[in-house]
Amino acid sequence: IYERLLEVFPTSGRHWLAYANQYVADNDKKKAIEVLKRGLPHCPHVDLWRSYLTHFTSVTMQSTKDNSEVLKAFERAVDAVGQDISSNSLWSEYIAFLRSCKVSNQYENTQRMNQLRRAYHRCLQVPMHSVDKLWTEYEQWEKTLDPNNLQMAEQIIRDLEPKHKAARVAYKERKKLRDAVQNPQFPGPYTGENKEKQNLKAWQELISFERSNPQKMPSEDLRKRVAFTFNQCLSYLPLYPEIWYEAGNWHGEIGDLSGEIKTLEKGILMIPNSLLLHFALAEKHEMRGNITEAKNVYENLCELQPSPLVFIHYMRFARRSESVQAARTIFKKARKSAQGCSWHVYCDAALREYYSNKDAQVARNIFEMGLKHYSCEVEFVLQYLDFLASFNDDNNTRVVFEKVLADENSLDRQQALLIWDRFVDFEYSRGDLSAIHKLEQRRAMIYPERQGSQSLAQLACRFRFSNLWPCSSIERDLLGIQ
Amino acid sequence: IYERLLEVFPTSGRHWLAYANQYVADNDKKKAIEVLKRGLPHCPHVDLWRSYLTHFTSVTMQSTKDNSEVLKAFERAVDAVGQDISSNSLWSEYIAFLRSCKVSNQYENTQRMNQLRRAYHRCLQVPMHSVDKLWTEYEQWEKTLDPNNLQMAEQIIRDLEPKHKAARVAYKERKKLRDAVQNPQFPGPYTGENKEKQNLKAWQELISFERSNPQKMPSEDLRKRVAFTFNQCLSYLPLYPEIWYEAGNWHGEIGDLSGEIKTLEKGILMIPNSLLLHFALAEKHEMRGNITEAKNVYENLCELQPSPLVFIHYMRFARRSESVQAARTIFKKARKSAQGCSWHVYCDAALREYYSNKDAQVARNIFEMGLKHYSCEVEFVLQYLDFLASFNDDNNTRVVFEKVLADENSLDRQQALLIWDRFVDFEYSRGDLSAIHKLEQRRAMIYPERQGSQSLAQLACRFRFSNLWPCSSIERDLLGIQ
Repeated sequence: IYERLLEVFPTSGRHWLAYANQYVADNDKKKAIEVLKRGLPHCPHVDLWRSYLTHFTSVTMQSTKDNSEVLKAFERAVDAVGQDISSNSLWSEYIAFLRSCKVSNQYENTQRMNQLRRAYHRCLQVPMHSVDKLWTEYEQWEKTLDPNNLQMAEQIIRDLEPKHKAARVAYKERKKLRDAVQNPQFPGPYTGENKEKQNLKAWQELISFERSNPQKMPSEDLRKRVAFTFNQCLSYLPLYPEIWYEAGNWHGEIGDLSGEIKTLEKGILMIPNSLLLHFALAEKHEMRGNITEAKNVYENLCELQPSPLVFIHYMRFARRSESVQAARTIFKKARKSAQGCSWHVYCDAALREYYSNKDAQVARNIFEMGLKHYSCEVEFVLQYLDFLASFNDDNNTRVVFEKVLADENSLDRQQALLIWDRFVDFEYSRGDLSAIHKLEQRRAMIYPERQGSQSLAQLACRFRFSNLWPCSSIERDLLGIQ
Repeated sequence: IYERLLEVFPTSGRHWLAYANQYVADNDKKKAIEVLKRGLPHCPHVDLWRSYLTHFTSVTMQSTKDNSEVLKAFERAVDAVGQDISSNSLWSEYIAFLRSCKVSNQYENTQRMNQLRRAYHRCLQVPMHSVDKLWTEYEQWEKTLDPNNLQMAEQIIRDLEPKHKAARVAYKERKKLRDAVQNPQFPGPYTGENKEKQNLKAWQELISFERSNPQKMPSEDLRKRVAFTFNQCLSYLPLYPEIWYEAGNWHGEIGDLSGEIKTLEKGILMIPNSLLLHFALAEKHEMRGNITEAKNVYENLCELQPSPLVFIHYMRFARRSESVQAARTIFKKARKSAQGCSWHVYCDAALREYYSNKDAQVARNIFEMGLKHYSCEVEFVLQYLDFLASFNDDNNTRVVFEKVLADENSLDRQQALLIWDRFVDFEYSRGDLSAIHKLEQRRAMIYPERQGSQSLAQLACRFRFSNLWPCSSIERDLLGIQ
């Protein structure tokens, strides 16, 4: 059960822990350690690391009595999650272990002392729970190290103090923001619940806070802190494209271009059906001039999840970065694709020929070609008609209006009404009085349930201009015009 | 008080009656008759006529004993309101008066008998209250006229019966419709109350019923019935342009073109500030080819109630019926008019040059001229930009976008945002990737409270096409996109 669950939710730390604890209960600590080891790369969670260290220490010390392996494990742990607000217990355990290490000579003693001081100095700059208690403990330790050299101890403490103070100040805000974050049962996708929305926002606020560098850390420390925060957030919300995109952008902003790409690629691995992340990746590649890579993204999309929108953006990309001919080839491919074709593709291809290539005739041909398949798509028909009307070629526009309205089989009554209304509007702005009246009458014949062509409401519509009406709003109410 | 009130509401029958009754109370019947005589042309109301007849009969018979004047008055009364559903009392009084007339010879007797029969025959075809009782009375009268010629009497009755039956059938529906009509205290304008709306509808239903000719009357009788119904309705709702327009159209439909025009002119006299009725009249004139008359309507409007909409339609009319030059002259006049000018006039003049005259350069010049005065009218600016964009001349369009956005003094922040959004949409469909990103960034700089240019929401908008989104609606909700 855990294997299957963790395949779906590899970042669910609590389930890795529960899985490992099953083996612990069976007294098979080695298996437990194996399980935890698999989970650790996915989950920057303090609890998971602490559990791992407990079992690893006990197994290792039992077999070899060599503490160097354990120390290395502790180092890996504090590297991974030593920035966590709850990492104080981990740090305490690390320090306790260091203190407990037997030393056999002066050299080893100095080495251990340096290790301890480094650990203290690192953790005392982390805004975490009970960091003030650790400070007291550290002061005492530093001062009692060499009673003959109290002055130096005080100097060291004094040098560290401002950085520690900054951490304590940052802790207050960090705690508030961290407390606002909820850890859901499963790291699932957004399902529309308000709770989830608030949780995402809470995470984003925490990330913003860390990125604002409240402790004024050097850039490398800041980078680590932000990276840790993103990673932890992504372990809880791995199916939220927002965070992947934000993390990618952050990499880009600090100049880590390959990190930017890798983050988006990891996001796509987690949420393979997210068009947003695919488009984001393709766009990044294209902006950096990596046309081949961008093209690969689009090719993959066309292969694995073809859709009209995918083909539309692939066509646009090809036109921008290759040639008109390349775009047309993709349009051809789209037309043959069962899931990748719709009126949208025809419409965009046509408009692109007109806008980018300034070729109105090709655009018209594409619209006409599309009309053969999509004369029942009122949105497509309206786009075509608007396109024609923008040419100021009234007679051609009228021909298409009439053609579309004459085709009895295509549009249903209510959709056809949209075309009629557009046609009447067209004549209001282009036609003469008798053309307008004739058209109003034709429409009224087909839709007798609407205002009659002889009604005052119809007159009011005819003489309206934009927000100017030939009557007051109260009169419009009486006439039944919105 | 009554004089002033009746000047405002000349069709308020109940106030004419109350006014006259004041004189009656003072025993000044002649004055009362004068007052009633003034009211009668405005009010086709049975009560008013009956009151008039009562006083007129008593005064006339007192002075001259000549009943011919009274009979003439009765004839005028039944001509005016003899179709009313409540006219039964009037008819009864008429018949009673006829019966009471002394005759001195056989010739006079025959004449009186014919008059009586004509009155009976007319009123028995009116769907009015108690018409069945009048029928019984008539049958008796006809049969007792000449006991020796009962056969002929029965023949006359039999000939009349189908028409009378039709009236009785129509009466049921007519009563229902007439009962639905409320007579308000004052014949005022529509003020937005539901009651008023229902009352208008009730009148329109009654009119429709009469126009449907339920009694299958000859066309002249039908015309009289419908005209009476319109007149009565207009005495109760004289400030409702709907009814004037409907009455005008009805005249037109039965071929009474001068009646159509006269009705609209009367309506304009009643509601001088109704643009709808003015436009309706101008349109009728123009449709009939009476260009001079149509022009007069527009000239009067420009003189007495100039407004942008008036000038817009005057310009359109001039272009249709005179020349481009005439339209331009009116545009010039509009520009100098304080109340008649607004961005709408510039916009319509420009579009008309483009659509009708196919002169894009003149259109551009007009838009540019308008921009000097109306750069703070976002709707105008957007119309201009849409016009430019439709030319497919991207660089010129961009120049105007930039010019408008650079003008700090004109648009307020929220209006300028509409221009920014339109500009970004424009680049989405025309620009290359870096132009799009740059523009998004510029907008985000000015409107930091909106989605950032680096946000996933912005990416989603960028990759949207019509109703196709690169994410589900639930994700859009999370991204805060409508």
